[in-house]
Amino acid sequence: MSDRRPPETATPLPEAAELDTRKSRASDWFRELRDRICAAFEQLETELDDGLPHAELAPGQFERKRWTRADEAADADANPDLGGGGEMSILRGGRVFEKVGVNISTVHGNFSPQFAKEIPGAADSDGRFWASGISLVAHMRSPKVPAVHMNTRMIVTGRSWFGGGSDLNPMVEVPQDTADFHAAFQAACDKHDPAYYPRFKAWCDEYFFIKHRNQARGVGGIFYDYIDSGDWEADFGLTRDVGEAFLTIYPDLVRRHMQEPWTEADRDWQLVKRGLYAEFNLVYDRGTRFGLMTGGNPEAVLMSLPPEAKWP
Amino acid sequence: MSDRRPPETATPLPEAAELDTRKSRASDWFRELRDRICAAFEQLETELDDGLPHAELAPGQFERKRWTRADEAADADANPDLGGGGEMSILRGGRVFEKVGVNISTVHGNFSPQFAKEIPGAADSDGRFWASGISLVAHMRSPKVPAVHMNTRMIVTGRSWFGGGSDLNPMVEVPQDTADFHAAFQAACDKHDPAYYPRFKAWCDEYFFIKHRNQARGVGGIFYDYIDSGDWEADFGLTRDVGEAFLTIYPDLVRRHMQEPWTEADRDWQLVKRGLYAEFNLVYDRGTRFGLMTGGNPEAVLMSLPPEAKWP
Repeated sequence: MSDRRPPETATPLPEAAELDTRKSRASDWFRELRDRICAAFEQLETELDDGLPHAELAPGQFERKRWTRADEAADADANPDLGGGGEMSILRGGRVFEKVGVNISTVHGNFSPQFAKEIPGAADSDGRFWASGISLVAHMRSPKVPAVHMNTRMIVTGRSWFGGGSDLNPMVEVPQDTADFHAAFQAACDKHDPAYYPRFKAWCDEYFFIKHRNQARGVGGIFYDYIDSGDWEADFGLTRDVGEAFLTIYPDLVRRHMQEPWTEADRDWQLVKRGLYAEFNLVYDRGTRFGLMTGGNPEAVLMSLPPEAKWP
Repeated sequence: MSDRRPPETATPLPEAAELDTRKSRASDWFRELRDRICAAFEQLETELDDGLPHAELAPGQFERKRWTRADEAADADANPDLGGGGEMSILRGGRVFEKVGVNISTVHGNFSPQFAKEIPGAADSDGRFWASGISLVAHMRSPKVPAVHMNTRMIVTGRSWFGGGSDLNPMVEVPQDTADFHAAFQAACDKHDPAYYPRFKAWCDEYFFIKHRNQARGVGGIFYDYIDSGDWEADFGLTRDVGEAFLTIYPDLVRRHMQEPWTEADRDWQLVKRGLYAEFNLVYDRGTRFGLMTGGNPEAVLMSLPPEAKWP
């Protein structure tokens, strides 16, 4: 488990101007990736064949909503350093996407002394942090099309690192899809370090596991955190390559299956699988629980929950 | 908050034979209450007027399933003291009840040293515990009929106490229902101590609160724990009176509303409210999280989750 923890020694932060440049480049990238993903998904909405369920609807479009931490947090007055915000993009009730949310956010502030103990480098920054990232969850109309999650982020405390990952959640596994999804992320990882993919794949399997049911949430992918190789450009490159891999493989998988017919029984099973998805996110997911426990915007934090689910 | 904690001084446990008698009487009561509740609910299933949604179905009946802790627990071999079990009664897809589960269980074993620290009296019993109780959650077909939860239990460590409660979850509050539900439990409590009801009502409001949404789960009821007044007969009497109150008021509330027409919009709102219910249970509910984290039977622990829910 030692390779799940942050490295013992952190790369020293650069001078302030360079650090600001890095922050801007990262948050600009998350915004650019968001724009490209939303465009790709809106394109998919236009490609559904006539006669299929929901083809009678207008192609779905994303709605955007900005939020700021100061607006949301009850303790904003007590903590004037609390700042930043984000933008939620949600497409609801589309022809292909039943509900997909893409959040970007760039926030800063101080961790509580209690929480700072758990965060690498926070002791060296007097609890100050900066974080920027993109987070996406897609729940699909068709039970033949896999659901998906993707997230990448950059964090700065007294050190700086990247984290992220993506995992696929088909209702019934299609082995070729699983293989191709993994291969896309392996290719992204292998450009940077051949040790990354096997480690990140195992980490994903370990993380997205519903312990109380002794079963995996989906068919895996990659999950990583605390990436600080000593070469920030390379680490940022990994982050971009993971985003590009997602942008290539996921729309490909959607196109493979979105025109397939499906039955009410398929739909019922999809809703049961979504119940497991909700269980994982509410019981275990660190990001979700962190957001809920620290007064995050519940609409943004819980955007990942399925539009409809069953526990029969 | 001090009255949410166990009393500083515990009533000494009686001699072993008397303690065994008390355990038997309590677990016998939980079983009797289960039988009477199931019979009352099956009666309601026969009373739906023709022409209403789901009236074409056969009246629902409970299915029972026994489970033992030894069957379920991965560490049963390592902990031969782990024992007991329970019985789940579930009525699914009825005419009035969409999904209702009534669990009874009587279990014993040893808390882990870590967990024992959090449990009153466990240090005095070397971590040994015995627990018996009944737990019920009902999700209704009609959005006009409130959902409900009820639970009572007896726990023995180095001390002994009762806990329990019941709370009402209408889709749209009907003030007379709320008043009558509270009055029923107030009457049960007032027979024993006039201080109980106001304390238990406030405790319920505090407990069933969805903090991340800053809203109550339902319209309250009572919630209590660590009841050890020094008079075990009186405390057991309170437990029985709470059960009797439930058995009177809840079927009454169901009958008031089960014949009312409802719309798809009512149903949609019901599914959204159920999403909040699932959020509460998975994120906050102590019993649910305790069950999930200690390797409980997930089917029994998560019986409370709604048959269908929405996060639009």
